[in-house]
Amino acid sequence: MQSQKFTLMLESVRRLMRSGATARALNVLRKGRPADVAQVLHALNDLDRHAVFTALARSDTKLAAASISEMSLAESVELLKTLAAEEIAQVLQELPSDDAALFVAELPEELRESLLDLMKVEASTEVQELLSFAEGTAGRMMTPNVFALREDLTVSEAISAIQRASRDVEMVYYLYVVDERNHLVGVLNLRQLLLAPPTTSLKKVMGTDVISVRTDTEQEEVARVVARYNLLGVPVVDEENKLVGIVTVDDVLDVIREEATEDIYALSGVSSEESVQSSPLRSVRLRLPWLLVNLATAFLAASVVHLFEETIEKVVVLASLMPIVAGMGGNAATQTLAVTVRGLALGEVAWENSRRVLLKEFLVGLANGIVNGLVAGLIVCLRFGFSAKAALIGGIIALAMVNNMVIAGIAGTLIPLVLKKLKADPALASTVFVTTCTDVGGFMSFLGLATWLIKFLK
Amino acid sequence: MQSQKFTLMLESVRRLMRSGATARALNVLRKGRPADVAQVLHALNDLDRHAVFTALARSDTKLAAASISEMSLAESVELLKTLAAEEIAQVLQELPSDDAALFVAELPEELRESLLDLMKVEASTEVQELLSFAEGTAGRMMTPNVFALREDLTVSEAISAIQRASRDVEMVYYLYVVDERNHLVGVLNLRQLLLAPPTTSLKKVMGTDVISVRTDTEQEEVARVVARYNLLGVPVVDEENKLVGIVTVDDVLDVIREEATEDIYALSGVSSEESVQSSPLRSVRLRLPWLLVNLATAFLAASVVHLFEETIEKVVVLASLMPIVAGMGGNAATQTLAVTVRGLALGEVAWENSRRVLLKEFLVGLANGIVNGLVAGLIVCLRFGFSAKAALIGGIIALAMVNNMVIAGIAGTLIPLVLKKLKADPALASTVFVTTCTDVGGFMSFLGLATWLIKFLK
Repeated sequence: MQSQKFTLMLESVRRLMRSGATARALNVLRKGRPADVAQVLHALNDLDRHAVFTALARSDTKLAAASISEMSLAESVELLKTLAAEEIAQVLQELPSDDAALFVAELPEELRESLLDLMKVEASTEVQELLSFAEGTAGRMMTPNVFALREDLTVSEAISAIQRASRDVEMVYYLYVVDERNHLVGVLNLRQLLLAPPTTSLKKVMGTDVISVRTDTEQEEVARVVARYNLLGVPVVDEENKLVGIVTVDDVLDVIREEATEDIYALSGVSSEESVQSSPLRSVRLRLPWLLVNLATAFLAASVVHLFEETIEKVVVLASLMPIVAGMGGNAATQTLAVTVRGLALGEVAWENSRRVLLKEFLVGLANGIVNGLVAGLIVCLRFGFSAKAALIGGIIALAMVNNMVIAGIAGTLIPLVLKKLKADPALASTVFVTTCTDVGGFMSFLGLATWLIKFLK
Repeated sequence: MQSQKFTLMLESVRRLMRSGATARALNVLRKGRPADVAQVLHALNDLDRHAVFTALARSDTKLAAASISEMSLAESVELLKTLAAEEIAQVLQELPSDDAALFVAELPEELRESLLDLMKVEASTEVQELLSFAEGTAGRMMTPNVFALREDLTVSEAISAIQRASRDVEMVYYLYVVDERNHLVGVLNLRQLLLAPPTTSLKKVMGTDVISVRTDTEQEEVARVVARYNLLGVPVVDEENKLVGIVTVDDVLDVIREEATEDIYALSGVSSEESVQSSPLRSVRLRLPWLLVNLATAFLAASVVHLFEETIEKVVVLASLMPIVAGMGGNAATQTLAVTVRGLALGEVAWENSRRVLLKEFLVGLANGIVNGLVAGLIVCLRFGFSAKAALIGGIIALAMVNNMVIAGIAGTLIPLVLKKLKADPALASTVFVTTCTDVGGFMSFLGLATWLIKFLK
């Protein structure tokens, strides 16, 4: 939808809601696609959003369902909660079961049971089956009603089967072929089907080297498979290679976006639950714990400085220079962290090739430390005149810089690797650990060297 | 491909290359898919990678071409450069023209001309056409040979047209319909085609509300459209609405990944050209300029501290506490930056709704500042005994914290917004500007307050 068209739609909905004409606002929305409705709802204030959505769910359950499929998970759940349990159940029934499962999992426990009771048996059973798989696996994100063809069909029988297929099955460009016991044995695409002679059996036309994932494959791996082989969808099989569902590329796209956001947020100390839309109060609640952890580590670094107060008292210029070494170590560590965490996410770094990465980051830290150390030393000399004392302080800052940048390289590589090895999110706590290393390391090496050489500095 | 199968493939290629049996190594590779060959090449050392790829390009140009399509751009270009110009031209000819254009654009200028001369006229013309569009637009990333059907065809004629279509045209699930002057007028999918009566004209079956992008649409916007409407591909039209190409979802997936990496890197001061594979020397070259910019701002912050050296000399404990206020401001700013930059990337924040976001971040900064300030003040009191002096220093740290966190909220929102408004990358330089604000702001407010109240502190 062109942005102009969207603005017009949004403006008329806003105007109609101001004059209380909810029914007419809904008529305007009905002209848009579900994704557009989602965007309009998103742009309304809380009051209007709730009012419009409630009215929509009551009058056009299908559109209401399709629209919340296009929103962020948090926003969908917020809107669903404004409805009565019966109404939620009706909306959920209209959704593909993977989406319905996603929402049910996010709703309060006590509501979940009654919703599953209120839904039609078929829909409810599908949702419960999906929920039996762990969060973040292919089983949880797949659509269970995948369209499959038996291998003993002929091409023309297959074409009639497609024509008869219900609108509800998920069919992309690929057609999966199964044997009599539903084992996944082949794949062909619609175009190959059109090109083959009508009486040939599928067995002869299909490709047998099918790329599939298992119900317990992690969603990151599913995304990697789809991206690597440029697929439009990937079949999901159980431990016996029986076809149980399909993950389509649009779900993969969402996973990739979501994980990128998570990585950026985790590296910056932001919860993945937050977004620009979160209320100030919610943002404070989500960010505060992380800041308090950082406050604790800041006091840890401060207590290192405290150890050297006698030295600072004697050569007070050290106070203004010490944050440089600590801060630059932090900057270098942030660079290393970004490369390592992204490499882990894209599957380019693993525990197995970590020695090479570690050696590289050691060398990079050393080289960057030498250049930055020399420049910093030179600036100190220039600012405090070329006295022996200035030269010595310059030398101290240079050495401390080299030391701290090497610490940055090693910590920035090792900490996310170890977290990953421990099955924790490598992005999540890395920043706080790593910057604590570079803060403590920076103050310690700079002030330590200065204390050791104090008699030449006075 | 299962990771076990991949490891076996990699190991045998390595072993065969060690014994100089390049031809046999190639035979092993031929059993894999292009994406697997790309992964094996990726895992080899530089020497083997170049040797295997050169041999592959000479013996199986098609597979060589398909494999480099699956690598990172930097790696593909590195491998292409190991070939002679004639060989590069042959590989490029085998590629879809969007990929060929991508590589040609990255090759040295002097090579480019001769490559376009060496390629077959048809391929070369297509590449040159793509290169006439600006980098990062739909025109540059599209495949120009899109399959289209004329609106006056009947369904059965359309099916024969599909059967006759060359293997080279890009066809996904969608079939685009054009009028006699090639204007895009409709769309239908293969399944709708199979369901329609054979003698109906396409005009009656097709949907007319086609989502399309223009050749000058930015790739981020293309990605948003495809993701929002869950498309498998989107048609590209010129300014007269004539169909000129298609962007498929696999290209969009690459864009989304690439942009996420760019955002993470930009926020951390890493060039988008870097990856885990970059050599140490290259990494140093890419990271050093950014570190030197940070070094300059670190000296700026140091000169603020320098102004207050007299105060520090009198109350030396301030030296150990001052990095806390500056650092915590940096942490809060990083949180705000991550949310704002991601919001901008996902299209949730724009200049138009920025006032609301700014107000929110002001409130969040205020609240987080008050809590962190109180906690920090309390810790100071606990550590230095509940004397009047300790209480005063606690009060100073609390006030400075509030002030600096508000600065963090405002700078972390405004700076990326302004950069975006100026058409610069909002992630790129934000971090250095914002942390300079919080460093200077932190030292200034903490040491400034202490200097103002110095007579009560001694």
